[in-house]
Amino acid sequence: MAMEVTVQQLAQLVSGTVEGNESLRLKGISAFDAAEPDDITFANAPEYLKKIDDTRASCVIVPQTAPRSEKVLLRVNDPYLALAKISGFFHGGRRVPPGISPNAYIGSDFTCGKDISVFPGVVVGNGVTLGDNVVLCGSVVVSDGVHIGDDTVVYPNVSIMEKCRIGKRVVIHAGSVIGSDGFGFAGDGNHYHKIPQVGIVQVDDDVEIGACNAIDRATFGRTWIKRGVKTDNLVHIAHNVVIGEDTVLVAQVGIAGSVTVGHHCILAGQAGVGQHLSIGNRATIGPQAGITKSVPAGQIVSGTPGIPHRLWLKVSNIISKLPEMKKHLKTMEKRIADLEASQGPKK
Amino acid sequence: MAMEVTVQQLAQLVSGTVEGNESLRLKGISAFDAAEPDDITFANAPEYLKKIDDTRASCVIVPQTAPRSEKVLLRVNDPYLALAKISGFFHGGRRVPPGISPNAYIGSDFTCGKDISVFPGVVVGNGVTLGDNVVLCGSVVVSDGVHIGDDTVVYPNVSIMEKCRIGKRVVIHAGSVIGSDGFGFAGDGNHYHKIPQVGIVQVDDDVEIGACNAIDRATFGRTWIKRGVKTDNLVHIAHNVVIGEDTVLVAQVGIAGSVTVGHHCILAGQAGVGQHLSIGNRATIGPQAGITKSVPAGQIVSGTPGIPHRLWLKVSNIISKLPEMKKHLKTMEKRIADLEASQGPKK
Amino acid sequence: MAMEVTVQQLAQLVSGTVEGNESLRLKGISAFDAAEPDDITFANAPEYLKKIDDTRASCVIVPQTAPRSEKVLLRVNDPYLALAKISGFFHGGRRVPPGISPNAYIGSDFTCGKDISVFPGVVVGNGVTLGDNVVLCGSVVVSDGVHIGDDTVVYPNVSIMEKCRIGKRVVIHAGSVIGSDGFGFAGDGNHYHKIPQVGIVQVDDDVEIGACNAIDRATFGRTWIKRGVKTDNLVHIAHNVVIGEDTVLVAQVGIAGSVTVGHHCILAGQAGVGQHLSIGNRATIGPQAGITKSVPAGQIVSGTPGIPHRLWLKVSNIISKLPEMKKHLKTMEKRIADLEASQGPKK
Repeated sequence: MAMEVTVQQLAQLVSGTVEGNESLRLKGISAFDAAEPDDITFANAPEYLKKIDDTRASCVIVPQTAPRSEKVLLRVNDPYLALAKISGFFHGGRRVPPGISPNAYIGSDFTCGKDISVFPGVVVGNGVTLGDNVVLCGSVVVSDGVHIGDDTVVYPNVSIMEKCRIGKRVVIHAGSVIGSDGFGFAGDGNHYHKIPQVGIVQVDDDVEIGACNAIDRATFGRTWIKRGVKTDNLVHIAHNVVIGEDTVLVAQVGIAGSVTVGHHCILAGQAGVGQHLSIGNRATIGPQAGITKSVPAGQIVSGTPGIPHRLWLKVSNIISKLPEMKKHLKTMEKRIADLEASQGPKK
Repeated sequence: MAMEVTVQQLAQLVSGTVEGNESLRLKGISAFDAAEPDDITFANAPEYLKKIDDTRASCVIVPQTAPRSEKVLLRVNDPYLALAKISGFFHGGRRVPPGISPNAYIGSDFTCGKDISVFPGVVVGNGVTLGDNVVLCGSVVVSDGVHIGDDTVVYPNVSIMEKCRIGKRVVIHAGSVIGSDGFGFAGDGNHYHKIPQVGIVQVDDDVEIGACNAIDRATFGRTWIKRGVKTDNLVHIAHNVVIGEDTVLVAQVGIAGSVTVGHHCILAGQAGVGQHLSIGNRATIGPQAGITKSVPAGQIVSGTPGIPHRLWLKVSNIISKLPEMKKHLKTMEKRIADLEASQGPKK
Repeated sequence: MAMEVTVQQLAQLVSGTVEGNESLRLKGISAFDAAEPDDITFANAPEYLKKIDDTRASCVIVPQTAPRSEKVLLRVNDPYLALAKISGFFHGGRRVPPGISPNAYIGSDFTCGKDISVFPGVVVGNGVTLGDNVVLCGSVVVSDGVHIGDDTVVYPNVSIMEKCRIGKRVVIHAGSVIGSDGFGFAGDGNHYHKIPQVGIVQVDDDVEIGACNAIDRATFGRTWIKRGVKTDNLVHIAHNVVIGEDTVLVAQVGIAGSVTVGHHCILAGQAGVGQHLSIGNRATIGPQAGITKSVPAGQIVSGTPGIPHRLWLKVSNIISKLPEMKKHLKTMEKRIADLEASQGPKK
């Protein structure tokens, strides 16, 4: 199983330059403190660059600005990107496809590509279509009429509800739900009446969904997670939301119904977005921000209610000094009273 | 399968009035932009009412105030309520009950009503009782001694723990947990000792629980979700909480132990309520609010810590202007200093 | 099944003193309002101590300061701790082990101790090791190479991913995920590239994980939940996080990547901690706090961004009075203008 590669070959993979023995052979990638001599490791932060001789790895991925070292260095423009590619090289190997376990249940009208892996405990409904190399892990439930594209991996205990469409090379982590009913009820003053949610969720290619996400199906039409979106754990996406390409939703973000988020946005952890709003392309929403108005493209917004990030920095700085400000106000008032007193009684 | 109905029949269902051809026959309900000529659709917001001729639907549900149109109009007092009822009419049809799948596991002392649907991968413990028409989807786990009432639907990968009681016409969305242990530990200064959680969760009739909710069982007695409550996704309800009738908990709300929430309340997204508090009937808690004191009936509370909503509106308006206020303070101080200087040295 | 015990025996268990008939025989523990004459119950809050004669229980656990009563009293230093121990005594009994259900799936190279309980619908991968008395409830998925220690209970629909290590006497509540991929992507300006997450999660002895938690595996090395940690529901723990011994994470807490939390900390509900920070031993983080800087040992921090709790109390008190402060400022300005006017025109 062990794979060997020279530093020079890795340098080609990541468009880097080698400083030291180019033909050094490596067998793996590991953390700075846990590496063995056969490993390449990674140092980006100054505190690691300073103690670069402490790692047992023979070769280290470093930024262009790193100082020289006894170690073989692989200099790159973006160490994290190089880490992603080299780690993918060593660890990206797919397990051997086991085919369809006899302990899985498959409904009628099932269509699938080649080399799929359906683990024990999987439940597949009727009229489901799976592409090539799809992996459904233990206890996954795929409901009637779902389509899943090539090379998609669905981890244990995920539920994909009726008619949802999942693209190619998608990863869905354990415990997530795709296609639960949108939260749609009409109140008559006394009780709430359910508005049937008859749309779907469409997840496009190269999306990765974290663990324990809940993504609701549309009332009509589709909730749409576009190509390249990445969501962290415990994210809530309501009905009829659209998330643009290559947007990142960090853990515990909540997005209310009918929100449109542009492409290349970042929504930091625990942020919330109110219903029917739109977040422009390449906008950034700060952690725990509460968005109550639409956000223009490119803007950075923080706080609850959300305000421009630079303003929020000033504001939050002042907030912690409010007790001083209050004292200051008192002193000023005293000085005014003194001035008034020295004027004598008002005429 | 296709069902046909006249506009007049739908008008009776929703107590509306028809403007145009009453005997027009309809086959479905669809979104404004996706509708076909056989469909009825829905326009409530002014931007949709303006472009009402753009939909391909022949008939449109509109508010009483909508302008006249070439389309057949179904005028109603509450378009959302009419949408709920008409969509329910077209989509509310139950699937044919498959009975109990031979790929489900059923424990001893099992009792059930007629026309139940138990899908493959379901695990039912001992001493479980299911009412008529109950649906348990794939990979649902129902533990020992649970009772589930008539017409309740439990979606995939839901866990219902020992002895919990679920009412009639309840819907529980995928991935939710009913009856996990309450978070009860007694610390001795060094370690925490578990307080066994021996109560249950009782979910009354007509409740709908969103996806990936976690509702804890009581320490003693019951955690109680009363009739008609609706919860959105990823909601946390701790041990011994009581939620009153027809109350709505929006996504990612968290309610700490022993809280009592009244009837007809609304808790907006990501709000949190501290332990042992009570929220009065028909109170509203704003999004992301952090409630640290009990809230009287009918009050609207926002912010962290929660304050009356009107006050919060004023406060949050001032907060974004704190940098201006600070400058203002400086100018005032300068003017005071000038006044003091013009007075000459103090006596 | 019914177990009988004297008050004297219970007093020995909890180092308490009995006031009244020491040889009274008890059969159970129950809530104040639901107790029967054979039960012991619990009164700690003044409102319960006042009405102590209202319970039907014959014996009551009370603090040292409680007034005398007709009831048999069991006086203790810490009533909650006594409750935990006595409730554990009555309810801690383990169910009879059913062995491995023929409706569970077990992979190759399986090793286990004695008296394990594997329920129907469980899926165990290859190379898994289980200690004595391990319980895996319905539809649990244990992936390849996982180790689970003695006396650990895993509730329904939990997913434990490849190679994770779970200690002894651990409890994992339903729907939780241990070992999902960390949220690690490297952006190239256009797209994100996945950084393979090849570390594990290590959960040490006596940890309890709430329902619907998501705990990510490390990029390299381990995400580490140390002995005695207790997490509530819907908690997010990112890759490479370390949580110290006997620390408590309340519901919906989110902890970003590579954070180190000390021992005996308390993170209150819905709090968030930014990446790479460290939280010192015995620190307390308030509910909904947003931590953006490391927190020293022993400190109490509240608010977003987090500030010392005492300061936060002052600040949040002033915040709700900002509208008054603004008016006050206006009055002061008027007084300054009056003073300026009475001086006559500036020279």
